[in-house]
Amino acid sequence: MSSLSEKLDKIFHPKSIAIIGASRTPGKVGYDFLKSLIDCGYKGKIYPINPASGEILNLKAYPSITDVPGKVDLAVIAVPAPIVPKVTKECAKKGVEGIIILSSGFSETGSEGKKREEEIVNILKGTGIRVIGPNCNGIYCHSSAVSFISSASVQLKYAESDPIAFISQSGSLCNLFRQMLLARGIKLDKFVSSGNEADLTATDYLEYFGNDPRIKIIAAYLECIRKGRKFLEQAKKISKKKPIIIWKAGRTKAGARAAFSHTAALSSSDTIYDAVFRQTGVIRAMGIDELVDFTVAFLRVPYPKGRNVAIISGPGGPAVAAADASEMAGLNVPELSKKTQNKLREFLPPFAGVRNPVDMTMQSIKNVEWYKIATDTVMRDENIDMVLIILPPPGRGLTECAKLMMEEKENYKKPIVFVCMAGKTEEGVKLLEKAGFSVFPTVERAAKALAVLVRYREYLESR
Amino acid sequence: MSSLSEKLDKIFHPKSIAIIGASRTPGKVGYDFLKSLIDCGYKGKIYPINPASGEILNLKAYPSITDVPGKVDLAVIAVPAPIVPKVTKECAKKGVEGIIILSSGFSETGSEGKKREEEIVNILKGTGIRVIGPNCNGIYCHSSAVSFISSASVQLKYAESDPIAFISQSGSLCNLFRQMLLARGIKLDKFVSSGNEADLTATDYLEYFGNDPRIKIIAAYLECIRKGRKFLEQAKKISKKKPIIIWKAGRTKAGARAAFSHTAALSSSDTIYDAVFRQTGVIRAMGIDELVDFTVAFLRVPYPKGRNVAIISGPGGPAVAAADASEMAGLNVPELSKKTQNKLREFLPPFAGVRNPVDMTMQSIKNVEWYKIATDTVMRDENIDMVLIILPPPGRGLTECAKLMMEEKENYKKPIVFVCMAGKTEEGVKLLEKAGFSVFPTVERAAKALAVLVRYREYLESR
Repeated sequence: MSSLSEKLDKIFHPKSIAIIGASRTPGKVGYDFLKSLIDCGYKGKIYPINPASGEILNLKAYPSITDVPGKVDLAVIAVPAPIVPKVTKECAKKGVEGIIILSSGFSETGSEGKKREEEIVNILKGTGIRVIGPNCNGIYCHSSAVSFISSASVQLKYAESDPIAFISQSGSLCNLFRQMLLARGIKLDKFVSSGNEADLTATDYLEYFGNDPRIKIIAAYLECIRKGRKFLEQAKKISKKKPIIIWKAGRTKAGARAAFSHTAALSSSDTIYDAVFRQTGVIRAMGIDELVDFTVAFLRVPYPKGRNVAIISGPGGPAVAAADASEMAGLNVPELSKKTQNKLREFLPPFAGVRNPVDMTMQSIKNVEWYKIATDTVMRDENIDMVLIILPPPGRGLTECAKLMMEEKENYKKPIVFVCMAGKTEEGVKLLEKAGFSVFPTVERAAKALAVLVRYREYLESR
Repeated sequence: MSSLSEKLDKIFHPKSIAIIGASRTPGKVGYDFLKSLIDCGYKGKIYPINPASGEILNLKAYPSITDVPGKVDLAVIAVPAPIVPKVTKECAKKGVEGIIILSSGFSETGSEGKKREEEIVNILKGTGIRVIGPNCNGIYCHSSAVSFISSASVQLKYAESDPIAFISQSGSLCNLFRQMLLARGIKLDKFVSSGNEADLTATDYLEYFGNDPRIKIIAAYLECIRKGRKFLEQAKKISKKKPIIIWKAGRTKAGARAAFSHTAALSSSDTIYDAVFRQTGVIRAMGIDELVDFTVAFLRVPYPKGRNVAIISGPGGPAVAAADASEMAGLNVPELSKKTQNKLREFLPPFAGVRNPVDMTMQSIKNVEWYKIATDTVMRDENIDMVLIILPPPGRGLTECAKLMMEEKENYKKPIVFVCMAGKTEEGVKLLEKAGFSVFPTVERAAKALAVLVRYREYLESR
């Protein structure tokens, strides 16, 4: 592990945290962050820092971080921007490992804020102390239970997380991404809200998560990339070991303007990013849905060996739509072998389609075992690399079908994805997700996710 | 109203229905359809037709439709395909208005089925009896409570429906579309599952819904268009009065093959459809999500006068993404006037963005009234035609913000759409939808929906 990675690992797993600007007034940021840290079950020492000292939320408060008796690994700053340089100096004096500056009012506001940001960087020069932010939402780490968002306590009840890390130049997206994964039964391991990136940048976090053996998938929301050359090198190196999925915003003129006033990000031309991502094997997501979908797919679906997908459906319209969506996404929907078609004919009604898609007709909702037999059958077709299955409607075979497929999971040697157009809250969907399958809400999203897996495998093989 | 429209209006509002193939065995199609009709509260006469006669679900059954004493408006056939010609002859003898053939096993299965389909058409030639299907899922009509799906009884408890009709060549999508609208608080008025279209085609239903004064928006899922020239004429005529939104599947080679084995649909080149749709003002949806989104937008959002959108957000990342999404969708995100920017500066913090997007920063979750004031302010900007608002996260101001915006609804003279990335089940989302606002799950989907409204208005003005 590089020294940077070791440093960041200490920041993500601190033995003690000081909250500078801790408040006893509910609703204030300095109160919420402290309370969340407690609620989420952080086990290390917590030191509220507040000029009035006394007690906050039953914890002894100190007027300055320099008054704290023990060692402080991580300082979290939530005071107004003009006071940040002063408390940063105190952090330097105390000798912490890292600082998270939550406060806004820096380079995103113009030249005065920019100067303030530079002042902070200068204060810490040579101290070895690294800074996350300013103008950010902090970090989240499942194993150390470091979280500044109360709602994360629900997720932290699970002992195990999934090996996914998220880097975001938008603070609000960090928690949204975590929650969207959780809604699909997946527990994010770490996120970092990188803010204005005065010191540590997305590239540094990429390096850290690249080196982190607990992380197998890296997702990111970026408005700009600040250390271009280093990013290129890191991305190239890491994407050979684990997929990097990036949603790059600020793609248009208006988006770039918005990005600048958001986090002082200077977006380059979108075509440059496209080229860089292609060269380095980075997977590009076009929005939050794709970011989540692709992450789900990488976590739960093995890489298909080729581009040939078999489609199995009860409903006929969605089967047609899935064929369209697969080809549009760059997959092939080859005609099944005569042998496979004959085997399907053995149990399906005469008006079923067996060429591919396998359109079992709506009679399949009364015969959900057809889903199982059809899946077995198409998987034996040598020409088929993966299977896309459109589930029966809720209340009309969905749960029964899900249960049958769950039991067979271990027997399926080729990648499978499911589509349930009725939504993710259905019992059948929950069952499949619990069994480790991935379920998508539309055929288009399922096909795109499969295509991304295929392209990443092809990228790996081309290296 | 044309004679075709009058005929279809009788079929959608029948005074009496015969279910041919009614069964007393739960789980059989002929049982389910009969039971659903009863459960959904259909008020007309129901005649179960079954060779064994006796009683089915407390209704007197008749061995043949010809044995029914009174008049029968609509015959629903759910017997195996080989028997369909025989019972069709009996329907002709009885003299019904229309027949729905649910049974599969016709042209979608090959030449033998095709012959059977032609036989049916020949039997009815000159009788004036029209056929929906075969190989279909029937119809749904809110005002007459004709429904063959039990789950629709939930929707039918509402007295009023929304003025939307759906034509679908996929039976399963009919109910899915109805349910997806209902999940967003919208009650579909009518659907027709057109199946193989042996007699009545999508073009005929288009004409009927075009003439139906209860219908203001027509949505459709099509795999092919069987009467091309007539479709063109109808679409051109109707789209001047009400929007027609079509999801055309069978776009790719694999999709076209699937469509053929699904409903014997012969898909033409996708570019032809693109051209036809553009010429006739038809709005094209690329999947079920767009079909639903565009329908929601047409129902709830007035047409923007131009292409200029103002974006208002608490979370910064989504604001950037919304700017991107708007420009990608063909909208403009112009810089707000200096006057507007100054007014925004009066209440927003110094590090907020005011040029457009209006990035109010996450401080807005503690000050949700900023949402209201910002919306008022940007609406007064002459250069702004519509507003896209990204709501606060759930539990962090979402509900409060929704309540505030609801109260102001009548004061907003320009179109507004909301984005809630946390999902449609949130209380705040439900409140906004109840107030008649439209809420989308991603910025991309909101921007695309707005762009579709703009393009349709431009189409109307260009005529």
